[in-house]
Amino acid sequence: MSETFVVVGGDAAGMSAASKAKRDDPSLDVIVLERGEWVSYGACGMPYYVEGSVDRLEDLVSVTAEEAVEERGLDLRRWHEVTDVDTDERVVTIRNEEGSFEQPYDHLLLATGAEPTLPSVEGVDLDCVFTLNSLDDADAIREAVEGDGVTEDVVGASDGEVVGFLRERDPTTVAVVGGGYIGLEMADVLRSRGTHVHLFQRSSHVLSAYDEGIAEIVQDHLREEGVELHLDAGVERIEGDGSGDAHAIVAESGRTEVDMVILGTGVRPRTTLAEDAGIEIGETGAIATDGYHRTSAPDVYAAGDCAEVRNVVTDEVDYVPLALTANRHGRAVGQTVAGKPTEGGPVARTAITKVVDLEVARTGITDLDEAREYGFDPVSKTISSRSRSGYYPGAAPITVRLVGCRSTGRLLGASTVGTDRAGKRIDTVVAALHEHATVANLERYDLAYAPPFSPVWDPVLTAAKVLNGAIDAPDEPSGAGDEPTS
Amino acid sequence: MSETFVVVGGDAAGMSAASKAKRDDPSLDVIVLERGEWVSYGACGMPYYVEGSVDRLEDLVSVTAEEAVEERGLDLRRWHEVTDVDTDERVVTIRNEEGSFEQPYDHLLLATGAEPTLPSVEGVDLDCVFTLNSLDDADAIREAVEGDGVTEDVVGASDGEVVGFLRERDPTTVAVVGGGYIGLEMADVLRSRGTHVHLFQRSSHVLSAYDEGIAEIVQDHLREEGVELHLDAGVERIEGDGSGDAHAIVAESGRTEVDMVILGTGVRPRTTLAEDAGIEIGETGAIATDGYHRTSAPDVYAAGDCAEVRNVVTDEVDYVPLALTANRHGRAVGQTVAGKPTEGGPVARTAITKVVDLEVARTGITDLDEAREYGFDPVSKTISSRSRSGYYPGAAPITVRLVGCRSTGRLLGASTVGTDRAGKRIDTVVAALHEHATVANLERYDLAYAPPFSPVWDPVLTAAKVLNGAIDAPDEPSGAGDEPTS
Repeated sequence: MSETFVVVGGDAAGMSAASKAKRDDPSLDVIVLERGEWVSYGACGMPYYVEGSVDRLEDLVSVTAEEAVEERGLDLRRWHEVTDVDTDERVVTIRNEEGSFEQPYDHLLLATGAEPTLPSVEGVDLDCVFTLNSLDDADAIREAVEGDGVTEDVVGASDGEVVGFLRERDPTTVAVVGGGYIGLEMADVLRSRGTHVHLFQRSSHVLSAYDEGIAEIVQDHLREEGVELHLDAGVERIEGDGSGDAHAIVAESGRTEVDMVILGTGVRPRTTLAEDAGIEIGETGAIATDGYHRTSAPDVYAAGDCAEVRNVVTDEVDYVPLALTANRHGRAVGQTVAGKPTEGGPVARTAITKVVDLEVARTGITDLDEAREYGFDPVSKTISSRSRSGYYPGAAPITVRLVGCRSTGRLLGASTVGTDRAGKRIDTVVAALHEHATVANLERYDLAYAPPFSPVWDPVLTAAKVLNGAIDAPDEPSGAGDEPTS
Repeated sequence: MSETFVVVGGDAAGMSAASKAKRDDPSLDVIVLERGEWVSYGACGMPYYVEGSVDRLEDLVSVTAEEAVEERGLDLRRWHEVTDVDTDERVVTIRNEEGSFEQPYDHLLLATGAEPTLPSVEGVDLDCVFTLNSLDDADAIREAVEGDGVTEDVVGASDGEVVGFLRERDPTTVAVVGGGYIGLEMADVLRSRGTHVHLFQRSSHVLSAYDEGIAEIVQDHLREEGVELHLDAGVERIEGDGSGDAHAIVAESGRTEVDMVILGTGVRPRTTLAEDAGIEIGETGAIATDGYHRTSAPDVYAAGDCAEVRNVVTDEVDYVPLALTANRHGRAVGQTVAGKPTEGGPVARTAITKVVDLEVARTGITDLDEAREYGFDPVSKTISSRSRSGYYPGAAPITVRLVGCRSTGRLLGASTVGTDRAGKRIDTVVAALHEHATVANLERYDLAYAPPFSPVWDPVLTAAKVLNGAIDAPDEPSGAGDEPTS
């Protein structure tokens, strides 16, 4: 008798696992239970759909429901919500519009993803206050900023009221709350659509996963593009206009009238289902897993934005809800379920984003206090260089910050920023982190050079050279540095 | 009494060593002997000077003679040729326009560079036959293609006759002999200046350091841009017009009338000085050195295009005359001479070039026969992917070829080609090679993803995934693969 692999959640981790398991072992019954309409969509592309540089919502879907069924042989059931997991009986309870029923499993993957963390302030439930957590959200925001031509058919039913309202509306002033990736990307694309954007950040600089020097370059760039930054400006409440619409945002920086509010205040793992089933939740708040993405319950896996991962630098658990990890770990679970136990591998917290013309990227452990907590003796250096040979047309400034450990010489992390090919240069450091490289060895990498692509010393090599000098210098105080060096 | 560090050759390796030694130990007398006019110039930028995208020859100079003397404290002597080295007496013989004299040394660096290898055929000494080995060469070619406005003052005296001749000339058809980097770059820039280019390649495809699949993409691109390719077309002779000018090129493919010939048929290390001094020459034909760039003679170093290096993949000696290596190894010699013994580190044979709109790059050992000679059990895979998320504007095809060792799982090399950010993606593989990574580990790198920069699985990861599948598959014949997989 064939075994049954039940997957809860039809996005990156879930669909990767399901597709890989079925491909590697066609005898498996693979059932994917998705509570919504959309499966396997590129959530990271949503800002660009709002921007209009991606035409259709369907363009963001990498595997359609039809392909999942017909080409991949998956038993995909949309609008099926799993409400309970019984790990003793090995059965899940499913609710759909026809009622509730049970589905036994031999292997179970929880790929329930993450949900937006809303600030606990008055007014977050007003109309015209949005998060960006689903294709329906993206669609509602795009309709809102376009201000006309709302087409009900591409909008999920649950957003009907909002969209109906927005039909009459053309927001010209928008508040974005949160200066992380989603916040900055939304500020960027809304600005590009001609709206006036106020960005509210609780702490003293945007991009809290970066140091202040890098963040300031991003902030200057946003200001030049007309985005109004409110720093050290925790939101206190969102005021309505009396008819249920958001009308103003009140923060430490004062009161600002807006037509629309977008909340980009982070996400947290969706773990209710696991918790209710008695599955262990880790110290990060996500579902605890081992190297094979196994939870505390037999034959139950967790992967993607709901699950813990291991950090390649610290070798400790971490919570890093990003797309590649979800895809890779889902795929590993699929291989394991199909009979070949596979580890998805650790992550480096790598992230990259485009903010108007700037490319910004990071990887590893870059906060010196955090590095110390993990037992490192951190030292960092920030350098300014150029993207190409100085004499070659298009050469533009690149800033690279590298962090290393003085006592071991080990590389710990990096961030980069610049307008011309600054972002993907982080991948050199990612590779080095995965191999536990030293800064001294990074300095000697034979990176590609030709005038259209790099100075002779790639900016990453220059940063390694300078950081290595600091690591070797016995008299420099630990954690010192970061004055730009070119 | 202060020690004397004598450096023979004032380009990348020589000037890096001299500058670093003087900075780290200001008490050193650092004498740089350069036989020509130019020091510390970016030879890799010469094609772009010919193209006109770099305005002035001086733009290619990273350290001027004045800066070398006044800011770096170097005793720079131009038009000083070293004619003899006596390693017993520790003295070099120098010739300049005033005569010959001797200079003692405590430490000596040979940084004599490389010289073009000319094909041994009739006619290479005709006028209008050029190599691209110095700024004067670049200048002469640019003057030739511009066809007017020759300014004697920027042209080295030695080229006076050629330039005088070219003044009357406006070459519209040019033969480029050799399909390596210099050949392709010159074909590209000459094409961009409106000349009709015939490219002659002795073997069956251009870029012999790449496999045929990658080379064909480059060839198709060149043909689309109007470059006429002659493959399997070894040059048999260059015919003159009777007055000393090149007039036609005769190859296996037939006779082609041209106005100018550019030879890009490789370089060889300049070792005469070392050989005459009894210094050991390695099996590669370059000066043999150890990890500290020491030659067989005491306190005599060699670095840059005249010296052997160690290959990071094979751990054997290699000859890789490229700019970054010269800079890095020169710098290491400078540190060593200043009292801190430093290894410049191995190289990976990394190279990158722009051919019209294509970016082409490679690293490591990619030829399967060569890999077998080094004792590996190679297997390769070529994949097609895209530069960005498929739905993101500007996404373009990228081809990645990866080579690994089946028996050890080790990564051996890679090549990439594509129009949109294909080239520097090679750096991920370079880092992996320097850390002796396995293909399995490369597959799990947490590379940067966001829609404007990459698909979720970066093309390098996709290639690793496919190659890893081939390594794991016991029934696939060794060395198999390379059918494109997307």
